[in-house]
Amino acid sequence: MGLLPVAVDAMGGDDAPNSVLAGVRLAVERNIPVVLVGPPEQISTLKDADGLEVIAASEVIAMGAEAASSVRKLKDSSLVRAAEAVRDKRASAMVSAGNTGATMAASLLKMGRVRGVARPAIATPIVVPGRSWPNVMLDAGANAECSAVWLVQFAQMGAVYCRDRWGVQVPRVGLLSNGEEAGKGSLLAKEAFALLQDIAWQQRTAATFVGNVEGCNLLENVADVIVTDGFTGNVALKTAEGVAKQIVGALLEAFDSSEDARAGAKLLNTALLPLYEEFSPDSVGGAILLGVRGVSIISHGSSSPEALANAIQVAHELAERDTVGSLHKVLSPESPR
Amino acid sequence: MGLLPVAVDAMGGDDAPNSVLAGVRLAVERNIPVVLVGPPEQISTLKDADGLEVIAASEVIAMGAEAASSVRKLKDSSLVRAAEAVRDKRASAMVSAGNTGATMAASLLKMGRVRGVARPAIATPIVVPGRSWPNVMLDAGANAECSAVWLVQFAQMGAVYCRDRWGVQVPRVGLLSNGEEAGKGSLLAKEAFALLQDIAWQQRTAATFVGNVEGCNLLENVADVIVTDGFTGNVALKTAEGVAKQIVGALLEAFDSSEDARAGAKLLNTALLPLYEEFSPDSVGGAILLGVRGVSIISHGSSSPEALANAIQVAHELAERDTVGSLHKVLSPESPR
Repeated sequence: MGLLPVAVDAMGGDDAPNSVLAGVRLAVERNIPVVLVGPPEQISTLKDADGLEVIAASEVIAMGAEAASSVRKLKDSSLVRAAEAVRDKRASAMVSAGNTGATMAASLLKMGRVRGVARPAIATPIVVPGRSWPNVMLDAGANAECSAVWLVQFAQMGAVYCRDRWGVQVPRVGLLSNGEEAGKGSLLAKEAFALLQDIAWQQRTAATFVGNVEGCNLLENVADVIVTDGFTGNVALKTAEGVAKQIVGALLEAFDSSEDARAGAKLLNTALLPLYEEFSPDSVGGAILLGVRGVSIISHGSSSPEALANAIQVAHELAERDTVGSLHKVLSPESPR
Repeated sequence: MGLLPVAVDAMGGDDAPNSVLAGVRLAVERNIPVVLVGPPEQISTLKDADGLEVIAASEVIAMGAEAASSVRKLKDSSLVRAAEAVRDKRASAMVSAGNTGATMAASLLKMGRVRGVARPAIATPIVVPGRSWPNVMLDAGANAECSAVWLVQFAQMGAVYCRDRWGVQVPRVGLLSNGEEAGKGSLLAKEAFALLQDIAWQQRTAATFVGNVEGCNLLENVADVIVTDGFTGNVALKTAEGVAKQIVGALLEAFDSSEDARAGAKLLNTALLPLYEEFSPDSVGGAILLGVRGVSIISHGSSSPEALANAIQVAHELAERDTVGSLHKVLSPESPR
């Protein structure tokens, strides 16, 4: 392979470092090169760490910590060191299941932006039942306030990512709005609609704009990339997760509410298992910060070892395919890298 | 009772007028006075219309028609005549399961705004599993672009409605944002947060501001009223509906996927029925347009007769309790009605 290892934040995630190490172990079994980032003395005591390279980092940014100030202050934190490893070409990519805001801030501060990109955005996959690839929604929360021009860049970045990761050759881009008709939208959405209709960016990106999509379309096969500002995207994503969690919680309670129900649930097990897998956040994988000069993947804090191994594998593959280079070509075609 | 009848748009809804008449019949059986609005010759042929008063309206605004222009052009439409009936005190309230935008436009044009209200808003109930009343979210789509001052008015209107309809004496108001911390939000959300913290409106309204809530809180018992702009509210609502529909669709398919699954589903029937009822949109009822000088309820186009009867009953009760008068008192305490 010869490729650099993926830097994995050993200290990020709900049960770090143990949960992280279990995921890393799975990734290593798939022959993906990994370098752990964290306190060596803490990591070395863990069985799963046997034989793994470690980049030393003595500090940890907590899950709830304020992002920007933590990254500035905790210079020897695992997150900051992981981002520096990518910048310094000691690692091909980074993965963290820790503090989302701090991962973003560390990546932006240490790796810098891809030339031509105004603002990096978080791209999150959303399962489309019955389709082998998800919808990619961005921005899922990096920029609460956006301009219409940024939304066009999000469309470009989302399309490049969708092509590199899922092989969709000419991704369809939809604009999240409050109605499918062309005239619908906030001022921002209407302005973005007008810019997205321009054929020039579509040709340069090899993508097509399919118009407005609505909240009810997020899990539907009406587009491949869905663009919106980070405020709306974050609300939509958390609403979808919240509703799914509420329904699943109510179902599980019902399944265990009587002898009959338990017997019924047992009979349904085979039929429900694929459904569970389809809707599980683990199967679509983590979010990615697009627009920084390096692959930076943000996993759920509650990622299973399997989910984290998948995230590490995706990070490795995107580095291999030089997705950052593709972003540069599409967003800044004239300037040298 | 002596109260005026509720004007019901006979021509609004997916299977109008038949579906509407079935709902009206149920409402009449509950001793709620109703007047139908629609073409008398078409209504008189229906068995369910026996003995019901009719306000003649020869035109119909189609479900997909452009709202504002339809309301201006189709002066003899059932929607416009229903709104006029409320304005002219021939009806206490109106209910339509037809074109949402046109119901809004007709209500605003014919009834006018409550004094002091900058913009009417659509308030939609969202089920909170395990709690006997829903969260009220507004604006769910009337105003794609909002000011922070309007959001405070939405909070006031939502609180009055929540108290009148569900008896919550001091409703808790949350602001929909992309994080629960005080500093999170778009420029609009941050500005609204600052205004909502002001104790004066809370005292005048008998409500309390509980800070930011997130998309994942929409179905949770963290507030009673959730305010947002109509763009974000519409996206969140449609996302919630879309996710619920996708999961329920996938479940029903799984339940019918094999002999075992069918047997299991049968055993689970008793346990799942209350859950189905809890999450059904029929049980929380339709949306209401708050801020116009009359009660105007917007039901789902696919409302069951039971759901429509509930909407008619709610309209009747809100007219009886003079919710519009309460809105006036809270929003314009100094000026005469």
